[in-house]
This record gives sequence, C-alpha cells and structure tokens, in this order.
Amino acid sequence: MRLQMTPEEFRIQGHRIVDWIADYRARVESLPVMARTAPGEIKQQLPASPPEGPERFDAILADLERIIVPGLSHWQHPGFFGYFPSNGSLASVLGDYVSTGLGVLGLAWQSSPALTELEEVVTDWMRSMVGLSPAWSGVIQDTASTSTLISLICARERTTEYGLARGGLQAEPRPLVVYTSAHSHSSVDKAALLAGFGRDNIRVVPHDQQHAMRADALAAAIDADRARGATPCAVVATTGSTTCTALDPIEAIAEVVAPHKIWLHVDAAMAGSGMILPECRWMWQGIERADTLVINPHKWLGTAFDCSLYYVRDAEHLVRVLSTNPSYLQSAADGRVKNLRDWGIPLGRRFRALKLWFLIREQGVAALQVRLRRDLANAAFLVTQISSTPGWRVLAPVPLQTLCVRHEPPGLDADALDKHTLGWCDRLNRSGATYLTPALLGGRWMVRVSIGAETTERAHVERLWTAMRAEAEGSVLSS
Amino acid sequence: MRLQMTPEEFRIQGHRIVDWIADYRARVESLPVMARTAPGEIKQQLPASPPEGPERFDAILADLERIIVPGLSHWQHPGFFGYFPSNGSLASVLGDYVSTGLGVLGLAWQSSPALTELEEVVTDWMRSMVGLSPAWSGVIQDTASTSTLISLICARERTTEYGLARGGLQAEPRPLVVYTSAHSHSSVDKAALLAGFGRDNIRVVPHDQQHAMRADALAAAIDADRARGATPCAVVATTGSTTCTALDPIEAIAEVVAPHKIWLHVDAAMAGSGMILPECRWMWQGIERADTLVINPHKWLGTAFDCSLYYVRDAEHLVRVLSTNPSYLQSAADGRVKNLRDWGIPLGRRFRALKLWFLIREQGVAALQVRLRRDLANAAFLVTQISSTPGWRVLAPVPLQTLCVRHEPPGLDADALDKHTLGWCDRLNRSGATYLTPALLGGRWMVRVSIGAETTERAHVERLWTAMRAEAEGSVLSS
Repeated sequence: MRLQMTPEEFRIQGHRIVDWIADYRARVESLPVMARTAPGEIKQQLPASPPEGPERFDAILADLERIIVPGLSHWQHPGFFGYFPSNGSLASVLGDYVSTGLGVLGLAWQSSPALTELEEVVTDWMRSMVGLSPAWSGVIQDTASTSTLISLICARERTTEYGLARGGLQAEPRPLVVYTSAHSHSSVDKAALLAGFGRDNIRVVPHDQQHAMRADALAAAIDADRARGATPCAVVATTGSTTCTALDPIEAIAEVVAPHKIWLHVDAAMAGSGMILPECRWMWQGIERADTLVINPHKWLGTAFDCSLYYVRDAEHLVRVLSTNPSYLQSAADGRVKNLRDWGIPLGRRFRALKLWFLIREQGVAALQVRLRRDLANAAFLVTQISSTPGWRVLAPVPLQTLCVRHEPPGLDADALDKHTLGWCDRLNRSGATYLTPALLGGRWMVRVSIGAETTERAHVERLWTAMRAEAEGSVLSS
Repeated sequence: MRLQMTPEEFRIQGHRIVDWIADYRARVESLPVMARTAPGEIKQQLPASPPEGPERFDAILADLERIIVPGLSHWQHPGFFGYFPSNGSLASVLGDYVSTGLGVLGLAWQSSPALTELEEVVTDWMRSMVGLSPAWSGVIQDTASTSTLISLICARERTTEYGLARGGLQAEPRPLVVYTSAHSHSSVDKAALLAGFGRDNIRVVPHDQQHAMRADALAAAIDADRARGATPCAVVATTGSTTCTALDPIEAIAEVVAPHKIWLHVDAAMAGSGMILPECRWMWQGIERADTLVINPHKWLGTAFDCSLYYVRDAEHLVRVLSTNPSYLQSAADGRVKNLRDWGIPLGRRFRALKLWFLIREQGVAALQVRLRRDLANAAFLVTQISSTPGWRVLAPVPLQTLCVRHEPPGLDADALDKHTLGWCDRLNRSGATYLTPALLGGRWMVRVSIGAETTERAHVERLWTAMRAEAEGSVLSS
C-alpha cells in the first residue's frame, strides 16, 4: 500500500498547483470579489465522511475549482477594498512554499538554527526599514491579537513584580487597570479580558474629533483610578485604527504614563507597514518611548499571512514571563542562543522568516516604498473626488489609505441614512464589482474604503468611485 | 518600476521552488540530521541591512542552498527520532500551497465562507476518524500550547461565572486552582501562569510507576484545596505525555472531578493521531467526559505545521468567552454562521483546513492507518531488540511510538551514568546519522527515541539501533 506522496509525485502535482495559483492570480479580477455563497452551501456539497481509500489528485483539484473557489472572497482581487489589505505578494508566497516544503520547526534554536537566526535578521531589517532604533528586539507572532495579549500579560507581570511566580493575578490586593480607546481594535478588549483584568478594569479613554485618544483624558482617568486605590497597569495606543486609521498621540501618551510606570503598547498593525516611508513617521512620534509594538507585514506590506512583528524594549522581561525549560527542550547551546519558544505563546514555530526575507529581497525596499506611495496617492485622489462631489462626505482625516465615506442625500433622517448606506454598500458588494466593509463611526454607519491591495491601480479606484456613485445616487433617484 | 512579482514570473519561479523541494525531500537522507551550526553562524553570513533594490531570484535560491540548508535540523529525515514526528506530508504541503497562494483570510464567515465551512467539514472528519461522538465541535488552532491556554481561560470563566464581564480574576475572593502532573507538557504550566492562576495555585499531582497521574492523589489534592477554602477549577490530563507517552487515566480522573464541576482538558497532542486506530482508543477511555481536547495532526498524522485540532463540548461557552463583535466585522449572515474569530485568540486565520483535507483525500484513511501501524510495529521491534540486549533498558511502557532508553554499563554511579547517556547521544547526533533528544525521567537522563517520521522504515530503525550500540558500547570499551 502506498503510504505517502513521493517527491516525484510532488514534483508533478506541485507544478500543477503552481500553475493553478498563477492562473488564479491572473484571472482573479474576473471573479466576483465577495463570495455570494449562502450559509451552509459549501458544506452541503462536501461528503460528511472522509474517504477510506485514496482519491485521485484530479478529483481534489476539481473540487477546489468547483466548490471552494465560488466560496471565497478574493482578498488578492484589485477590487478588494474591505477590512484591510492582506497582500500575499507572490514573492512572499514562494518563501512560504519553501517553509512548508522544508517542514522544519523552531521549538528551540537547536531544532533548526537557521529558522531562529533568519528571524532575527529579518526582524532587524524591518526594524531599520521602519526607522526604529536598535533598542528594540523583534520576533514573529501570528497576529496582532496575540501580540497585544502578550503585551498585557507582560504589563500585568511587571506591575505585580512577577505575581505569576506567586499567587497570580487573583492574589493582587488592588485591581490593575488597562486603558484603551473606543477606536482601539476589538482584540485589545479581548486581550484584557483573556488576561484576567475584567471588564470593570478596562477604561475607554475619550477621544477627540479626529478619533484619537485624548492624553488629557487619559491622565484624568489614571488619576481617578489611583485616587480610588486601583493600580494603572497598561495603555494600548493605536497608530492607524481599524475603522478610520486614527492616530493616537504616542508622545503625549508616553509623557502621561512615564511617571506612573504604566506599560505602553502600541498597535501599529496596519499603519506599521507605512512607516517604511520616512514621510509617514510623524504619525507615531514618540514610538521609542513605548514598551512594546506590533506591526503586521501580512497586511499592507505584502507578506503572506501570518507574519506579525512584535518588538519589545525589554527582551529579558518578555522571556522571564514566557519562558519554559523542560529537559526535552534543553540543548548544549542554551545560554548562547535565542530560544524563540520563550518569546511567544506557542512552542511550535514555522519558518515564517522566509516569506518576509523573500519579499524584501525580491522586491527591494525602494519598490515596496513606491507601491505604498502609489496607494497613498490613490487614496488622496479618491478623497479629492469625493470631497468635491455634492452629497458625498469623507468623514475622518485620511492620513493613510483608508477613507470613511458617506453619501448623504438630503431629506433622510439618521435611521434612513443608515439604511441607505448599508443598502448601497451591500448591493455594490453583491454585484461582484467590489468588496467594501461598512462600519460604525460616531454611532452611525459609513462605508470604509481601504485601498492597498497589491494589484489595485488608479483605474480600479476610478471604477470603484463610478460604481459607488451609480449605486448610491441611483438608488436615491429610483426611490 | 516593477512593484510586484507577476503571475507569469511566479509560474516560472514556483516550478523551480517545487523542484527544489522535491529534490530536497529526495536527498534529505544524505544530509546530517541535526544541524552542526554554531550559534550566530547563520546570522553572520547574512547582510545586516535589507537590499534597496531588487535581487535576482537566483541569488535568493543560492543563499537558501548555501546558508539556510546547512543550518537546518531535518525533521523530514528518516533518521529523525527527536522531539516528536512533525510530518509535513507532501500531499498536505500542496494543500498549504493552495492556501498561501489564494491568500484569503477567515476573519468572519463572510470574509471567505469556504474557509470556515471546510474547516467544519475536516474537523468533523477527524472527529469521526478518532472515534469521538458528534457531541464535540472542532476548530483549528495553531498549537496545543494555545489550545491549552484557551481551555484554562474557559475553565476560569466557567468557575467564576464569567468574571471577565465584571472584575476579572483579580476580583475573585477565593483562589482558583489548576491540577496537572509532572509529566504534563511544559505548556500546561505556562498556560496556567499566563491565564493568571499563579504558581501557588498549580498543583502537581503525583503519578504512578507508569508516570500516569494518580486519580486518588488528585482527589486528595482537591479535597485539601477545598478544605483550605480554595476553588478547584481545572485538571489537565494527558494522553501520551511528551517525555514517555504516559497515559493519564481519563475515566478515573473524570470520575473524580465530575461532582466538583472541575474543567477537564485532555492534551492528546501527540497520541491523538494514533486514535485513528481503533485498537489504540483504550488509551483515552473516558474521553467523552472531558470538556475540551486537543489533537495535533501536524505531528504524527502528517499535516503540515500548524494544524492543532481543538474540540469542545460546549461551543456556546467557548464563544461567550472569546467573542468580539465590532461593527467592521459584522455581516448579514451573522447568527446563521460560525465566525471562527470567536473560537480562538487571533482574529486573522489562514485557510488551514486545506492541508488536512488534501492529506486525508490524497492518502485515504486506510493508508494513514497502515502508516501509523507501521510505526507502532517499528517501535515494538526496537523494544524487543533493546530489552533483549544486556546492558540496555527500556525505562517506561511503550504504548505508542516513543521509547525511553538507557544504556547502563556496570560500575557507573548515577552522575557518571548521566554523563555517559548525554555523551553517547550527543556524539550520535553530531555524527549526522540521527537526531535523538534526551530528557529527564525520574530525575535522571535517558534518551528518547520517537519513531514516526513519515519516511522512517524498519531499515532506518535497525540502523539507528546499530549506531546506538556502537556509540554507547564503544565509548565504554574505549574509556
């Protein structure tokens, strides 16, 4: 009985898979961007039981084409303006192919030294690309959600002086408090709850007209907590919030928290890629005063998901919080090497550095910068178009590539306007031409246009704008 | 300026990468299994700064060959007997290639419905393959470490009746306690500390001669904690421990914890794959009484890392603990679909189901069973060889594929024996012929032989045994 696919079979089928992906990328623009699938529709086409015997590879490929592809929303489509750009640049894809094909794991430095050392090299490269000082040490995590959770746990342990080595959070006499903003990502709230702080100890600091956290309000909240006997523990500030790329004032926040030894974590998951452009770095002015920082090259920059860069100032503290050292993971090299299991939650670790290494080398820094500037220019172009068109509004500043847009025909009350907004956006998405994700801003629905899919050129933005006008304005005319 | 690799360039370079991986897999047996690299040796061969302009793809491939490969320990080598088998079966590798190439994300069902629905299908397939009832719901996590952390957080929240919605763990009046064993994986300890329980509230329950947790000792520990006013919260039991595949008695443990409503999490990360063999299922007798369970098909079964299956009995509880619902992730389908962001820590999610789907379909269940039985037979063969050879001992029962071995020449005291054990193992590893990871058992070093790399056949085990004898016995003769 055949117990494995051989290298020669892999060579043949691998070429077919590469061709299939090349064809997919070449034709993706012809597919509807957002999946039109009804709930359960994919599942019901698949057998409920696994096959007892082997199936032909052709059958698997056929199902991929017939069942899976129609059930995808195509993130690599030039008409994808939803959520955030998650570019799987093809150079990066090839780096990931090497990683999966090698099938090596980074449990410890010894378990594949190159995995650990290349990760050091590429996180150092990125550190210099975004203009950070060498005081930061980097490691690759899966996502910003996980990175933020680690930061809040590190904050908890610094404030409690390693309470985990004693009675844990449950033994703390005074409640520890986390500060965030209504515009912080949902993962901040989630991380604080998972780390044990509790809803009662999460403060949503008021924001200003530009949706940025107010440093004065943060100071007031900290003072109020101290006055009632609570212990301010951590602030999560955001450079480029999810809804509207708001910029929390890092420098002013650092100024507020420094005297209190409050942990400052900066979530630059989306905007961090933009910091490879020197002209963008004013956005996180003061970043060197943060304790931890997360940047996701698996978003705008183009590294295949998952590749979330987590930078810390105090690596020793991180390792003290996260380290384990069972006998079966010890090696003679310990003490002279980084064991990345002590830098994150999972023990197992893919060779994720390869996909970032391939991307940076195959493109070069200059080309990455030009592509991001292209997207910024496309966003500026769309801002101009929308701002100069009667009935349309851009609702928030656009420092990067995300626009918050509303079509506001006269005579609609707030509820009717919400209905109108969700209506035209949904129809546009269902048309297959584009994918936009609406969100609430100030309690009312608007449409986010997140520009920056790798294949999105000016012509796609122009077509988007034409389609938005036709759908939104047309629906008013016809009603 | 060229701003991306085109699909046609990808086609050409992708074929080269597939060929390179095919060649790598075909020649891997000729490479030294364990990397011989000195700390820092890889890093110093790489430039400290990223390239400003693009590099030729040939240069990247050349560095891969010249710098990276010598720095790898080869997990797919037939002489790999270290840690645990982490098989990246080539069929599974191709499934992962599709995932990375598609570049779609599962933030929400709507963001790529097929990603979510195929994950439901394959976790259901695996559920039936390992003989679990349909009362379990599955989801793919990255690793068992993360799965265990989620379980302990779920336990914490059940015991506190959702304390996270109020004052968090820090508001609990009585300390919550977690029970584990000295043979549990290091990630259990780590998870309990990260979840906030604190070292003082982790009980290491005594184990029996077979290294299995003693249910009577667990009962006594629980009673003692209750008597002092603490709240027993969770037990982590293991089916197939890391060091010696010890089997905690799930049924008896379930019996002990049931009256106290203590959460029972079962870590079957390694042994879970073996449960596709009906003759192995006695090992986790009582499993249906657990609350949560983790099985890693990225180990022995052969799914490319990372693919950790996390099964829960009460999906509603899991979702209540982990859910977030910001406006930018809402869709019209909500309420009728699974949003997997509420089933784990990260929001972003790769299309990981593909690699498991490809593996099961391309191989068929029967072939997977035959391969695992081959490995069990190879382990039994080696047990027989070692047990019948004077001076050699198998130190623990071998229910699966991991042997704990020691060569015990007469006249050595315990410290000298430790030195002898670590010595011959290290020399064998450095010879390039094999990779074995030593570990402590009962406070003394022994050598683990973890059989089950996909390419390991009987002949490789025979050669391993010959090499072990030559190295260990030879060193005694020569000393």
